[in-house]
Amino acid sequence: MEDVIIFGATGSIGKNALDIIRSNKKIFNVKALCTNANIAVLKKQVDEFNPKYVCVADPVQADKFKDVLKKGVKFFYGLSGLKEFCSLESDISVMAISGIAAMEPLLAHIPHTKRIALANKEAIITGGKFIFNKAKKYKTEILPVDSEINALYQLFKSDGKVERVYLTASGGALFDYSKPRVAKITAKQVLSHPTWKMGRRITVDSATLVNKGFEVVETNRFFNIEYKNIHVVIHRESVVHAMCEYADNTIFACMYPPDMRLPIGYALFYPQARMTVKGIDFSKRFSLSFQPVSFEQFPLLELVIKAGSEDNNKLTVLNAADEIVIDYFLKGKVEFKSITKILFDIYNMCPAYMLKSVSDVYKWDTWGRGKTMELLDKLC
Amino acid sequence: MEDVIIFGATGSIGKNALDIIRSNKKIFNVKALCTNANIAVLKKQVDEFNPKYVCVADPVQADKFKDVLKKGVKFFYGLSGLKEFCSLESDISVMAISGIAAMEPLLAHIPHTKRIALANKEAIITGGKFIFNKAKKYKTEILPVDSEINALYQLFKSDGKVERVYLTASGGALFDYSKPRVAKITAKQVLSHPTWKMGRRITVDSATLVNKGFEVVETNRFFNIEYKNIHVVIHRESVVHAMCEYADNTIFACMYPPDMRLPIGYALFYPQARMTVKGIDFSKRFSLSFQPVSFEQFPLLELVIKAGSEDNNKLTVLNAADEIVIDYFLKGKVEFKSITKILFDIYNMCPAYMLKSVSDVYKWDTWGRGKTMELLDKLC
Repeated sequence: MEDVIIFGATGSIGKNALDIIRSNKKIFNVKALCTNANIAVLKKQVDEFNPKYVCVADPVQADKFKDVLKKGVKFFYGLSGLKEFCSLESDISVMAISGIAAMEPLLAHIPHTKRIALANKEAIITGGKFIFNKAKKYKTEILPVDSEINALYQLFKSDGKVERVYLTASGGALFDYSKPRVAKITAKQVLSHPTWKMGRRITVDSATLVNKGFEVVETNRFFNIEYKNIHVVIHRESVVHAMCEYADNTIFACMYPPDMRLPIGYALFYPQARMTVKGIDFSKRFSLSFQPVSFEQFPLLELVIKAGSEDNNKLTVLNAADEIVIDYFLKGKVEFKSITKILFDIYNMCPAYMLKSVSDVYKWDTWGRGKTMELLDKLC
Repeated sequence: MEDVIIFGATGSIGKNALDIIRSNKKIFNVKALCTNANIAVLKKQVDEFNPKYVCVADPVQADKFKDVLKKGVKFFYGLSGLKEFCSLESDISVMAISGIAAMEPLLAHIPHTKRIALANKEAIITGGKFIFNKAKKYKTEILPVDSEINALYQLFKSDGKVERVYLTASGGALFDYSKPRVAKITAKQVLSHPTWKMGRRITVDSATLVNKGFEVVETNRFFNIEYKNIHVVIHRESVVHAMCEYADNTIFACMYPPDMRLPIGYALFYPQARMTVKGIDFSKRFSLSFQPVSFEQFPLLELVIKAGSEDNNKLTVLNAADEIVIDYFLKGKVEFKSITKILFDIYNMCPAYMLKSVSDVYKWDTWGRGKTMELLDKLC
């Protein structure tokens, strides 16, 4: 039995991971579950999977949760509780906390697990160096769960020398919309992603291709591929997740239906391969389309890649700004086009510094949040 | 320098191999060239590549060629000459003789080379067992050049356990034609293959999907994959050459533009990967389509796979019949629909026997040719 801890158990990644565990109870034991604030979903999960340890990071929700908890379950709460929770030992831990909030628990937890199924990209794009160093020190495997990066992880195991990689992008919910229409788009329209069911911020990031820019940076951090050899291709169907091109121009493409349970299952069962979802149905006719991406249509993709390749504090700041401005957008406080404006403004006003430690990451994250709110207050 | 011998130098595979060698003269030395009868092309190749040894199998053409040969080139001719030619030593030999005629030189040559780039499928589907046994004994690598099988060869190097494979089929020149129209089709119409430039027989075999059936059998012989796990998918663009599906339903697809120089280059440069052709152009929009294959539309595909899975003399007989009937068709002696009729007739009238040795293969090949001509004489 593999002891599994899930950070971010109540989000879509956490739910998918539990869905796989539900069908494989002889292989996995849910040792511990952690959520930020969604105690209603957590309650059901605790009842079904009987973890020995439970954590609710939000103190207000934690207070409500205490009363409904079964006896014999050890309860952690608040930020200090989360810190303690990170010292629990596991065989596999799913890190599905969203945003840069994952950084601290991720770093704290690395010494206590054999493998992290990593479903968070903000920690890698901002503090990747520090995370990989620590993982190396403690011999902790980090397996990317993000479908594109996971596809590359699978493809890189082939023994050819990879020259170039292609990350596919669905183009998001607004791909076919005109520019004036995009500027006025509502949160609801953005959140109807054509192929992937995901969290709210990442769905908006998919529409701006900020998410794809982050994946380009992840690809550089995970596989040490130069930026000039990482390409983005629009692929509306989200069936091909990534491609590797070898020196002879042969391409290996990694394909499966757009269902996050497959890459999550990959990370859980690794190095075995077990079925979690149905495969591509070749008994039906289908097409896969590819088209170049336009930086004019998606200026933030270019901006994020540029910031990533500078390898300084700017991507940390952009990530912070992106999180804040999307929050404002989803609450209806600013228009969709403000996301682009704010990110360019913050990039331009941010002085460039090297990140020398994790505390530098936090410092620039805080700086980015503060500056973004200042800018947004003027807009609202 | 790698000494290279090319059997079938004047056909499309031979020419493509020499095209690659032309651009890599510091790596490859053309030691010897062999053709059946095309002395006009051979003359040019000899002038350009200066092989030390030359062979013309057809005695009449050989006689004409003698006079034009440069001094210092050792000349082999006729079937006895070809036999001697097979004892020349090489680092890499390209076996591109077409039809079952490749069997004898292939078997004779295995002890004298380190690697065979095999572009012939008839030898594998009829006498594969004897070829692989001999190659194993002499530690000779056999690398498939056929694009689909080559794609699988590349994909199998990945360390996952392959559960199922998909071979793609362009569908050939007649895919969109109605059944009555197909029955009356001319040789010229069949020979205009949509995506691949190939030899004449294989182009007809592509239109009937007999060629794809042969590849299914090759896949079984090369990789020991059960027939039930080998699937054929229609893919008109011939960009995806084959796919492997792992236990978790992830598919790796091997993709490149339809240009035989890539798999030939793969076999020549192996284990290095070097560029021989331009890669897929992602700066342009394109689509890849997939649709199920219909055994009703392609009854010979089913017949060939059935014969292959029986693992007896029947596929040898079918191959012989196919070669003869296509020859009649290309000469305008019989209609296109006769190919299907003859192959079914010959399959049904052939008694089933195990093949115990290479001489059994030859015996049934001869039987198949004789019976086919008898049947055809009644038709013509």
